[in-house]
Amino acid sequence: SRELLVLTYGALVAQLCKDYEKDEDVNICLDRMGYGIGVRLIDDFLARSAVKKCRSYSETADMIAQVAFKMYLGVTPSVSCSSAAGNEFSLILDKNPLVDFVEELPAERASLCYCNLLCGVIRGALEMVHLAAEVTFLQDRLKGDAVTEIGITFLRKAEDRKHKRN
Amino acid sequence: SRELLVLTYGALVAQLCKDYEKDEDVNICLDRMGYGIGVRLIDDFLARSAVKKCRSYSETADMIAQVAFKMYLGVTPSVSCSSAAGNEFSLILDKNPLVDFVEELPAERASLCYCNLLCGVIRGALEMVHLAAEVTFLQDRLKGDAVTEIGITFLRKAEDRKHKRN
Repeated sequence: SRELLVLTYGALVAQLCKDYEKDEDVNICLDRMGYGIGVRLIDDFLARSAVKKCRSYSETADMIAQVAFKMYLGVTPSVSCSSAAGNEFSLILDKNPLVDFVEELPAERASLCYCNLLCGVIRGALEMVHLAAEVTFLQDRLKGDAVTEIGITFLRKAEDRKHKRN
Repeated sequence: SRELLVLTYGALVAQLCKDYEKDEDVNICLDRMGYGIGVRLIDDFLARSAVKKCRSYSETADMIAQVAFKMYLGVTPSVSCSSAAGNEFSLILDKNPLVDFVEELPAERASLCYCNLLCGVIRGALEMVHLAAEVTFLQDRLKGDAVTEIGITFLRKAEDRKHKRN
């Protein structure tokens, strides 16, 4: 099933590249689509993984890497915390199965975040468990980086902000 | 991984529906994309299934239903031969996992063959093993039919035709 996913995803990205001239527009569109997928996929994830509620951002990041990525993409990124505040994490992928059939980005698509759907999926899924986050690609092997790195920054919750103001 | 495939496929169909006003154009596009996927997926299929060469159209149809559908979609359609000539087959699906998140087609999309990608995939994969075929949806539960039925008509091989002419 994974090969079919990878090829279907490739068809989706190719179609968006036909539709939008600017890489940035394709990236936004992939992120938005991913968001829509994430808000639906979370139910399947919670049902099948039977995981307990995470007690920290760190636990949540580990859960995404070790359970969710494993379940849906068959790989387990390593996780590192990249801020003293403890709300920024990196998922580092040595191998990204979604690009199995992609050799390199064409020169005219140098700014394309080919896998940007994943960022949207994570963001959407987190939102459904009441966690606001920014999710972006920080490194991408398709762009010549040594690894693929997805950055997750958990945003302070609305209640926290309100509390602080009071 | 299958849920992610199903949702990603849904995003692809939704995008094509934005791009093309006519259902017929979406159907053609899905079939063409599927063809491109099928010609690449066949290598994965042959490598992972380790099946032997089929000796008849009937064996081929069974292989598609029992091995390929099982492998990539997790379901096994039943197969029936629908022509005396032995070159027309139906794959009948009681359950189509690709439509898991689709309740019904919107009224303005009544002619959409939502899963038309599958026809293209089968056609493309068959072509890579030197079998020409026409593959179309004959029934679709999304359109109110009792089952979903994919029709495969194997076309006479070029050599056969040449032989006959001589």
